[in-house]
Amino acid sequence: MLGDNRYGKAEIRLVHVARDSPTHELTDLSVSVALGGDLAAAHVEGDNSGVLPTDTQKNTVYAFAAEHGVGEIEDFGLRLARHFVGSQPSITWARVTIERYPWERLGPHSFERSGAQVRTARVTVTGDDAWVVSGVTGLVLMNTTDSEFVGYIRDRYTTLPEATDRILATAVTAAWRHACAEPTDWAASWDGARAALVAAFAGTYSKALQQTLYAMGTWVLAERPELAEVRLSLPNRHHFLVDLAPFGQANEGVVFHADDRPYGLIEGVVTREDAAPAPGAWEASWSF
Amino acid sequence: MLGDNRYGKAEIRLVHVARDSPTHELTDLSVSVALGGDLAAAHVEGDNSGVLPTDTQKNTVYAFAAEHGVGEIEDFGLRLARHFVGSQPSITWARVTIERYPWERLGPHSFERSGAQVRTARVTVTGDDAWVVSGVTGLVLMNTTDSEFVGYIRDRYTTLPEATDRILATAVTAAWRHACAEPTDWAASWDGARAALVAAFAGTYSKALQQTLYAMGTWVLAERPELAEVRLSLPNRHHFLVDLAPFGQANEGVVFHADDRPYGLIEGVVTREDAAPAPGAWEASWSF
Amino acid sequence: MLGDNRYGKAEIRLVHVARDSPTHELTDLSVSVALGGDLAAAHVEGDNSGVLPTDTQKNTVYAFAAEHGVGEIEDFGLRLARHFVGSQPSITWARVTIERYPWERLGPHSFERSGAQVRTARVTVTGDDAWVVSGVTGLVLMNTTDSEFVGYIRDRYTTLPEATDRILATAVTAAWRHACAEPTDWAASWDGARAALVAAFAGTYSKALQQTLYAMGTWVLAERPELAEVRLSLPNRHHFLVDLAPFGQANEGVVFHADDRPYGLIEGVVTREDAAPAPGAWEASWSF
Amino acid sequence: MLGDNRYGKAEIRLVHVARDSPTHELTDLSVSVALGGDLAAAHVEGDNSGVLPTDTQKNTVYAFAAEHGVGEIEDFGLRLARHFVGSQPSITWARVTIERYPWERLGPHSFERSGAQVRTARVTVTGDDAWVVSGVTGLVLMNTTDSEFVGYIRDRYTTLPEATDRILATAVTAAWRHACAEPTDWAASWDGARAALVAAFAGTYSKALQQTLYAMGTWVLAERPELAEVRLSLPNRHHFLVDLAPFGQANEGVVFHADDRPYGLIEGVVTREDAAPAPGAWEASWSF
Repeated sequence: MLGDNRYGKAEIRLVHVARDSPTHELTDLSVSVALGGDLAAAHVEGDNSGVLPTDTQKNTVYAFAAEHGVGEIEDFGLRLARHFVGSQPSITWARVTIERYPWERLGPHSFERSGAQVRTARVTVTGDDAWVVSGVTGLVLMNTTDSEFVGYIRDRYTTLPEATDRILATAVTAAWRHACAEPTDWAASWDGARAALVAAFAGTYSKALQQTLYAMGTWVLAERPELAEVRLSLPNRHHFLVDLAPFGQANEGVVFHADDRPYGLIEGVVTREDAAPAPGAWEASWSF
Repeated sequence: MLGDNRYGKAEIRLVHVARDSPTHELTDLSVSVALGGDLAAAHVEGDNSGVLPTDTQKNTVYAFAAEHGVGEIEDFGLRLARHFVGSQPSITWARVTIERYPWERLGPHSFERSGAQVRTARVTVTGDDAWVVSGVTGLVLMNTTDSEFVGYIRDRYTTLPEATDRILATAVTAAWRHACAEPTDWAASWDGARAALVAAFAGTYSKALQQTLYAMGTWVLAERPELAEVRLSLPNRHHFLVDLAPFGQANEGVVFHADDRPYGLIEGVVTREDAAPAPGAWEASWSF
Repeated sequence: MLGDNRYGKAEIRLVHVARDSPTHELTDLSVSVALGGDLAAAHVEGDNSGVLPTDTQKNTVYAFAAEHGVGEIEDFGLRLARHFVGSQPSITWARVTIERYPWERLGPHSFERSGAQVRTARVTVTGDDAWVVSGVTGLVLMNTTDSEFVGYIRDRYTTLPEATDRILATAVTAAWRHACAEPTDWAASWDGARAALVAAFAGTYSKALQQTLYAMGTWVLAERPELAEVRLSLPNRHHFLVDLAPFGQANEGVVFHADDRPYGLIEGVVTREDAAPAPGAWEASWSF
Repeated sequence: MLGDNRYGKAEIRLVHVARDSPTHELTDLSVSVALGGDLAAAHVEGDNSGVLPTDTQKNTVYAFAAEHGVGEIEDFGLRLARHFVGSQPSITWARVTIERYPWERLGPHSFERSGAQVRTARVTVTGDDAWVVSGVTGLVLMNTTDSEFVGYIRDRYTTLPEATDRILATAVTAAWRHACAEPTDWAASWDGARAALVAAFAGTYSKALQQTLYAMGTWVLAERPELAEVRLSLPNRHHFLVDLAPFGQANEGVVFHADDRPYGLIEGVVTREDAAPAPGAWEASWSF
C-alpha cells in the first residue's frame, strides 16, 4: 500500500544578477522543490498524468527569477510554492527550500564569497495553509572560556573528568518559524534572529551546551515577536587539551587538539508558550 | 518554553576484530547515540544531574563491544538502547543508529573495503516500546534501458521532450521497519530485503521513477513477511544524451553526460495494509 | 614574466553505453584534459587565437567516444591527447587524466556500482614523446595483525609505546608508468598490477608502513615486466586500541577507535634499476 | 630500487589560545609535516632506527606551540622544519605545510569562523637551504561583467558561441615564493599579496581567464618586492545563461545556472625576471 510520498527537483543552482544600475546586485541560491498530492497513479501504474516534471519545476524557478526577480528568499519561496499548488489540481502540497550564499561587494560588479554561513528558508504551502521557516546553517562559533561541564551522572563507564574551564565550539544549524506567513521585512527579521543567536552564544556562561542552546532559542524569541518557535541542532565540536606533561610543560587552556569524530550532538526546540504547534511547517507528512 | 530535545554522541567509529581463531572477523561501524528524557534542568538551569555525558555514551559503546561482541547491528543497537533507558531514571528514550561498512576477506587477517553500499540500523527504545528499522544507503543502481517518461503534465514552463528510452540511475537510501523488535535472523532479513530492492529495480520496466520506487517497496514486503513498512529516497541521477548532431554524429542512447545538479528526488513510503503506523520508529518526537 | 602554464577542462563526466547486443556494456568515466603550448598571447594580451576552448575539449571527448568507442582508458587517453597535439599548432603538450568507476553487472542492461576503488590513467603527449601511467585510487586495505612498529628514534617528544601487534590500514593511491606507450593489453596489465599490490599488502609481515610500501612497489615490478616505475601514497589510517581498563576489561587487539586526523602519510617511488627517469610522465613542467 | 620518498603526519589540528590578557587570541591551524632523508633501511628491511615516528612529529607540533607560541605560520613552519632537520641525523629534508582558518572576534573570548578563505604556508628546509611559500586557497571571486571570450580557435568540434559579456567566477588557489627565508613581516606581506590578487581580479577587463591569471600574478609581484614567483590555479566556475526564450522571456545577463562539472581549469606561473628558479620550494623531489 502506498503511503506518503513527495517528489521534486533538488539543488537548482540559480544565480541572479540585477543589472538595473551600474552597481550590480548578486543573488546566489540553491533552490529545492518538493511536491505532493494525488500521485498514486504514477507510483502504482506509471501513469504520469498528474506529474509536473521536475524539469519543469526547474524551468519555473528560473523563469520566476526573471519575471519577478528574486527578492527575499522567503517571498521567492512563497511565490513558487503557491504557483505549484495553485496551478496544478493534482498538486496539493509544495515545499520550497532555499539556501542563500553570502557574497561581499568588492566593487560595482565584483564580489567575494564571504563566510560559510548560509541563510535558509523553508516554505510550505497546502490548499489551506502556508508556513515560513527561516534559518541559518554553517554558523561556526567558539568561546575560549566561560564554559564548564560538571555535576553529571557517573556510572561504571564514566571516565570524563569534570571541566571547569573548557572551549565551547559549535556549528549552528537553526531554524525559526514565523507565526504567520504574511509578507514582512524578512531581512530585518533574519538579521535580528541571527544576531540574537550569536549574542546568546557569546553572552552565556555555559554549564552545558544544552543551556547554551536554550539561551539561544529564548533570546531569538525575546528579540523577535514575529517568531513562534526555534529549533536548534548544535554539534559539540570537541577541543581536547593536549597533555604536555611528558615534555615537562604545563597546558592551562592553551594548546588544544580539534577533534573530528565522534562529536556530541545537542538538539532542541524552544517555543513561545502561547504558540500553537505547527508540525506542517517542519516535516513533510513523514521524515526519513 | 523548552520543547522536545535530545542529545548524544554521534559517529563513534568502532572497529571490532574477533580473534578467537586464526581467521579474524572484522566489524567496522559508525555508531550514533541519541538520548531523551527529563532534561529540562540541564537546558534551563545548566543542572547536569540528569545528564549521562556523551563521553560516557561513547565509552559504553566500546565496552559493550568488548563485553558482548558486536554481532548483528540490530542486536547491538537494542542492547545499547535498552541499557541507556534501563540504567538511568532520567533517560526515557534512546535511539542508536549504526552504519556498517562492508569489507571483503583477502586472507585470514586481511581485508579490502568493498563497495559504497552501507548497511544501516536504527533502533529506538522507550520505557514501553522498541522499534527496529534496518536499511541501506549508498546502493547505486543503473538501468541503461527499459525506462521511459511520457504522458506528464505540460504547462507554459514545459520544455522537456518525452523520452521513450532513457537511462535510469539512482543511489538508493532505503529503510524498512520490522513488525516486531524480537531477535530474529537479522542478516538473512537484510540480505533478502536488499536483494528484493535490487531485483525490483532491475526487473521493472519503468514509466516513472515513482513506479520503480513503489515496485521496490512492494517487492521487499512481498519477500519479507517480518517487515511492515519500507521508506525510500531515490535521487534521480540524470544522464543527459549529448547532442552530437553538430559533429554529424548520431547518438542513439550511447554517449551521455552524467550531471550533478540539480537532480530529481523521489521519496515515498510503502506499507503493509494491516500494519499499524509506528511513527516512533522513525522520527524523534520532532524532526528538523 | 610568464612561466609554465596549462589549461583545460576538468572532470568531464562521460557515460558510454555499448548497445550493439542485448547485453549492454557500461563505461563510466571522469575525463580531464590539460593543454600547454604557445599561450603567452592569451595571458599577456588576452589574444585567444592560439586557444582551443575548454568547451571544445569537452565536445571532443564526447565525440571521440561516439566515433571510436572508449575501449581501455589508456587508449582513449592516447587518442585524445594525440589529437590535441596533432591538430593544433599552438598546442604542444597534452595530458589526459581519466578515472574509471567500477560497475558490476546485474542483468543484460542493469548495473550496480561496486567499490570505492577507481582505475586511473594519465596520458601525456608532446610532439616527441608519449607516456602512459596507469593506477588506482580508493583501494582501502587492512591487516588486523602481522604489523608491528618498534626500534624507532626516541627523543624528548616521544610518547608512542612500541607496538608488536597492531592494525595496519591504508587507502592506496598508486600509479605505475609503462616503459613504453605502445598499445598493449592494458586491462591485463592493470589487473596484474592491482593484484600484486593487494598480494604484497596482505602477504607482508610489516615492520613499518614504509616496508609495506616498498614491498608493494617491488611486487608490481616483479610481476609486470612492461612497467618501469611505481609511485605510492599510503595514508596510515590509525586504529587506536581503546583503553578498557577503567571498566575492568582487557582489550587484546579487539576493540579499536578508527581515527580521522591526523594521519600518517607515507609516499615513495620504486623504480626498475635500468629504467631511465621520465619526469614528463608524471609532472607537468611544474607542480603546485 | 627505492626512489624518492617521504613520510610524515598530516592534518594535525592545532588550536592555540593566547590567554595572557582577558582578550584571548585564537589561532586555528591544520599542520602537516613531511620528512625525508636516509630512510632506505626502513623501506627495504623494516629497520626503523632512522625513523622519527609521525606520532612524535605530532607531539612536537603541540609542544612547540606551547613553548614558543605560534605567531605567524611562516615562522612556526620554519621553527618546526629546522628542528626536524637539525635534531635528527637521518632527516635531511623537512616540509611543513600549514593552513590557517580565519576567525572574527565577537567579544573578548568569543569568535565566529569567517569565510572559506584559508591562509597557507609551505616551508621547506634542507641542510643547506630554506624556502618559504605563502598562499591562499578557497578565495571565491566573481565579476558579473567586464569579461568576454572571443577570437579563439574553431575546429570541427566547436559549438561555443563567442561571449562579449559573461560572468567570470573562480575559486583562487595561489601561492607565492618569498625570495628569501629570513624573518620578515609575514602578515603584512600576506595581506598585501592577497589584496593585489583581489584588486587584479576585480580591476581587469578580462578577455580570457588566462589574462586575469597573469594580471593577478603580475600585480602581486609589482606590489610585493619580497616575492619572487607566484603560482595560480583558477577553476573557471561556469555560469550558464538560462535560455528563457521558450517562455517568451529575454535574459540579458540576469538569470544563470551555476554549473558544477566539468569546469575549466587554468594554471600558471608568473615569475620576476631576475629570479632564480627554486623548484625545491615547491615540489618534493617528485610529485604524484
